[in-house]
Amino acid sequence: MDITTIGGIVAAIGLILLGQALEGGHVGSILQATAALIIFGGTLGAVMVAFPKKDFVRGMKLAKDVFTEKKHDVSGVTARLVEYATIARRDGVLALEGKLKEVEDPFLRRALQFVVDGVDASVTRDTLEAAIDAEFEENVIGAKVWESAGGYAPTIGILGAVLGLIHVMENLSDPSKLGGGIATAFVATVYGVGSANILFLPFANKLKRKLGLEKERKTLIAEGVLSIQEGVNPRVLEEKLRALSGEEAPPAGADKRAA
Amino acid sequence: MDITTIGGIVAAIGLILLGQALEGGHVGSILQATAALIIFGGTLGAVMVAFPKKDFVRGMKLAKDVFTEKKHDVSGVTARLVEYATIARRDGVLALEGKLKEVEDPFLRRALQFVVDGVDASVTRDTLEAAIDAEFEENVIGAKVWESAGGYAPTIGILGAVLGLIHVMENLSDPSKLGGGIATAFVATVYGVGSANILFLPFANKLKRKLGLEKERKTLIAEGVLSIQEGVNPRVLEEKLRALSGEEAPPAGADKRAA
Amino acid sequence: MDITTIGGIVAAIGLILLGQALEGGHVGSILQATAALIIFGGTLGAVMVAFPKKDFVRGMKLAKDVFTEKKHDVSGVTARLVEYATIARRDGVLALEGKLKEVEDPFLRRALQFVVDGVDASVTRDTLEAAIDAEFEENVIGAKVWESAGGYAPTIGILGAVLGLIHVMENLSDPSKLGGGIATAFVATVYGVGSANILFLPFANKLKRKLGLEKERKTLIAEGVLSIQEGVNPRVLEEKLRALSGEEAPPAGADKRAA
Amino acid sequence: MDITTIGGIVAAIGLILLGQALEGGHVGSILQATAALIIFGGTLGAVMVAFPKKDFVRGMKLAKDVFTEKKHDVSGVTARLVEYATIARRDGVLALEGKLKEVEDPFLRRALQFVVDGVDASVTRDTLEAAIDAEFEENVIGAKVWESAGGYAPTIGILGAVLGLIHVMENLSDPSKLGGGIATAFVATVYGVGSANILFLPFANKLKRKLGLEKERKTLIAEGVLSIQEGVNPRVLEEKLRALSGEEAPPAGADKRAA
Amino acid sequence: MDITTIGGIVAAIGLILLGQALEGGHVGSILQATAALIIFGGTLGAVMVAFPKKDFVRGMKLAKDVFTEKKHDVSGVTARLVEYATIARRDGVLALEGKLKEVEDPFLRRALQFVVDGVDASVTRDTLEAAIDAEFEENVIGAKVWESAGGYAPTIGILGAVLGLIHVMENLSDPSKLGGGIATAFVATVYGVGSANILFLPFANKLKRKLGLEKERKTLIAEGVLSIQEGVNPRVLEEKLRALSGEEAPPAGADKRAA
Repeated sequence: MDITTIGGIVAAIGLILLGQALEGGHVGSILQATAALIIFGGTLGAVMVAFPKKDFVRGMKLAKDVFTEKKHDVSGVTARLVEYATIARRDGVLALEGKLKEVEDPFLRRALQFVVDGVDASVTRDTLEAAIDAEFEENVIGAKVWESAGGYAPTIGILGAVLGLIHVMENLSDPSKLGGGIATAFVATVYGVGSANILFLPFANKLKRKLGLEKERKTLIAEGVLSIQEGVNPRVLEEKLRALSGEEAPPAGADKRAA
Repeated sequence: MDITTIGGIVAAIGLILLGQALEGGHVGSILQATAALIIFGGTLGAVMVAFPKKDFVRGMKLAKDVFTEKKHDVSGVTARLVEYATIARRDGVLALEGKLKEVEDPFLRRALQFVVDGVDASVTRDTLEAAIDAEFEENVIGAKVWESAGGYAPTIGILGAVLGLIHVMENLSDPSKLGGGIATAFVATVYGVGSANILFLPFANKLKRKLGLEKERKTLIAEGVLSIQEGVNPRVLEEKLRALSGEEAPPAGADKRAA
Repeated sequence: MDITTIGGIVAAIGLILLGQALEGGHVGSILQATAALIIFGGTLGAVMVAFPKKDFVRGMKLAKDVFTEKKHDVSGVTARLVEYATIARRDGVLALEGKLKEVEDPFLRRALQFVVDGVDASVTRDTLEAAIDAEFEENVIGAKVWESAGGYAPTIGILGAVLGLIHVMENLSDPSKLGGGIATAFVATVYGVGSANILFLPFANKLKRKLGLEKERKTLIAEGVLSIQEGVNPRVLEEKLRALSGEEAPPAGADKRAA
Repeated sequence: MDITTIGGIVAAIGLILLGQALEGGHVGSILQATAALIIFGGTLGAVMVAFPKKDFVRGMKLAKDVFTEKKHDVSGVTARLVEYATIARRDGVLALEGKLKEVEDPFLRRALQFVVDGVDASVTRDTLEAAIDAEFEENVIGAKVWESAGGYAPTIGILGAVLGLIHVMENLSDPSKLGGGIATAFVATVYGVGSANILFLPFANKLKRKLGLEKERKTLIAEGVLSIQEGVNPRVLEEKLRALSGEEAPPAGADKRAA
Repeated sequence: MDITTIGGIVAAIGLILLGQALEGGHVGSILQATAALIIFGGTLGAVMVAFPKKDFVRGMKLAKDVFTEKKHDVSGVTARLVEYATIARRDGVLALEGKLKEVEDPFLRRALQFVVDGVDASVTRDTLEAAIDAEFEENVIGAKVWESAGGYAPTIGILGAVLGLIHVMENLSDPSKLGGGIATAFVATVYGVGSANILFLPFANKLKRKLGLEKERKTLIAEGVLSIQEGVNPRVLEEKLRALSGEEAPPAGADKRAA
């Protein structure tokens, strides 16, 4: 469970409603089914027009990743790659074949398979990089579905408010209904601005970041496996992977001894 | 037929009007020929000024692609390229000449023709890449026609609203007409914001994405044909094309056996 | 004469005024010399501050290109380059010297001159590319003058409206003048938003596109002349230039026979 | 202590409140706990949704860097690198080992360690560059946390204002409370716009710039150490480091004598 | 003196005030010390928070460049470089040593010094390019100080207006003061929008352009000096420098004779 997503939504909506309640407003006055129908219906429709069906579905599916947490265990990956590098250096890359079945991560397994199969290094690099890029590009479209929802919602909110105001203006002769009518119209703005800024745009941002972290992790694996294929010294590999993953280097003294 | 385009437009306009009706508003009060004349006339004019005639026409023609669905059968393309690679490897590239006439896709046929004609690999690559880029760049201008319509419509909508309000202000002495006049003015905003966010901007987005997918498909073909020319191993080619197209790799075990 | 520029301006302003007239508004009520003075004076001043004199003058001069149409006869250029390639291949590049004086296009003549003079290919490439880039970069600044006018005009329009409203607010005691005063203030918004969205921004867009097409044409010439210098096969050159210019390739059958 | 951060916040808030007081407004009327709850609670929640926990924490921690000043002693670094280059040229790179323990800067020490350990130059370059890039990319996400807060705050401010206005509209029957209610609603806008433009966005800008300067400093060290490894002439190194750091070159005469 | 800066500011402010006066407004009514205090104080503070002290000072110092004109005598530079190339070709690069003291431009002198000192060509190129880039990057931050002032001023203007309106709303019971109060509040918007669009943003634009032109000039010098070091033919150098600087090439006939 992604604690900042759940916590953030609860905090944002909770504190806004709390403030509203403390101010003496009724929470009920901002619950309006017709405004919701206009804003969320209009936004849904606009997003459907804006994306092919496949991308739209991908965006909907990706929504669950906003709420779940994947472990990006970068140090674990680094440690494992260094271990494989040590084995490969000592016993040759074919010795990694036995390790293959215990590898759970499908991308790491796929990359190691190339090494074990003795595929040419430049083909391995091209294929792994193409796979990383293609997967990222495809998934990022899913994040853009939410970003575009965050772009359309506030303007559809304004549209809903203006529609409400038109309705109010036609009934100016009955001033007693004026305030309530305008209030109703404003709820559309609240729904449009609120859903965009508390849900849709933050969702898009979190998805992009998570996809970026996953891409970094796979790039680390690809670099590591390619270095193993080249027979790089395990200690140098560790230093390189630490640098790539932005981890602090061990203190110089420790480095010294390792050398 | 592109189901998300049709469905999205129906959903957006339908749900907005439904919400409006439930609220007690008359749909008729947002149908105004003069407001439509101002907003769509003004937007049309601005877009015409903004683009050369050729681009404007291209944009208009491209509109039908928003409503139609082209099959991007990437796995089919991959399978066919792998088949050709197998033939070329076994019988030489000239053996592909017989296959040429059964190829329906004009770009694939054109690319294979280069191979069969024995054109130099670097010339083939330069020409195919230049053709892909030039076609994409030209067509994307057509998508930008819709994007710019989506940029001008809301501001022309504001212009229409302000023009309406000026009209209202001059007749302040007759308060009974005030509300109706303002309502009329607001309809211009509804048209500008609505057409931009439900039609023009989503159209531009969908067109760009479809052009991008078409470009990816042609890039896949170009890469495949160039690999055939180089005599790449069909199995390696399949792996590479799968990576490029972002398809999931087959499970490692399957891979193993194939090797 | 650029028909979409003229037609677009006439359509936009005409249809907006027609809508206004049908609505019962007086066109005269949106003609106000002082509002025009504020908006166009302010925008002119802001643009002058924003650009060096040379760029400002270039922007003003470039305005006529918005209204005139230059023929971008890409197929003609391609045909001519292929003809020269055929001559150069048969009789050597010096045979092109006689053709030089009948070349009207100064850039093509300049490029051919390099070939006839026997200047080194890499120097020719560097110089032609530098010339194309430098000319484009310089001219695009002229388009940006209009773009920045389109950026400043709406905000100066708001400034004019607020100035008008300040004036209105100070005379609140005389309600009979209220409506007219506000109407006057709103005209400033109309001028700012209208001039930006119907003239300045579309002008900038059209100029950029025309400069881009001119750059493409010169790049085509440069590529063609460099290929002539390298002694490329005229048929391959034709295919390459067609690809570069985004023209449809001839049907595969035709290709076949030509080969 | 970062004097422009402290001074800027004091100046901005102080002068705005002073202006408000001179105008006869009560500062107390813009202090409202419920508006603060809505705006800052809503913004906090939106930012939490928008970033993974690790990034959010990094952003919070980075906030102290907005208020503290780190010395970017570029000339000192240059002088030291030139000194080490002189030693390395005279006595070999191993002579730098004795210097290692007196180096306080961890990045410089880490870089020199590579040289002393005799690690291959291309590995040193790759590792140092990867470390610089990864550290910058990770930290810049922290700055983006503040940037996104600056993006959400004004829209949540509008949301708060609209919520307040809805509350006002429902009580239109009691005009005596109208003004106060609207004033309360407007305070939400003040909080949203003010916090974004005086705190959040400037914080993000300052953080990015400081991270950029730190990156420049490390790039300078990396270039210097790599030049030392290559055995570059100390005078040439000094000239190169000065150029890289944008320092004025010494007058030509001085240069002359040094040569 | 930069005539478009002075002329532009005079034109913008003069014509806006003239329009305001013709409309019957008192210029005095838009002169308000407290509004100025709020807007300019708030903007100053925000900019201080947004930049380190060194950048802020650079931005302030750069302001004078908005008002002064530097001669970018590109043809003069070209002529001089061609002259030096002729000397270097005839008498060797050391013959340029005598010319060094009559060179006023410090960058040209510095670049020639490298040639005379016999520094390696790739070191010369790296150092000159690094110096050009570093100087440009540093100075462009100064232009961004003005750009950010142009970004903050309108929002601080809105903040000032809302603060004023809050003050007005609290005194709704005295309608006679209503208009004046609102007018005062609006002046804040005028100051924010006006200073951003007539001063700050145009200043930033002009500074960036001037820095860009200076960068182009230095790049021209660097290219020229490097060509001199390589012993390029002076006529070819002239053609190349003309192309780089975007100057029209001489007519083909003239070229011909020169050859």
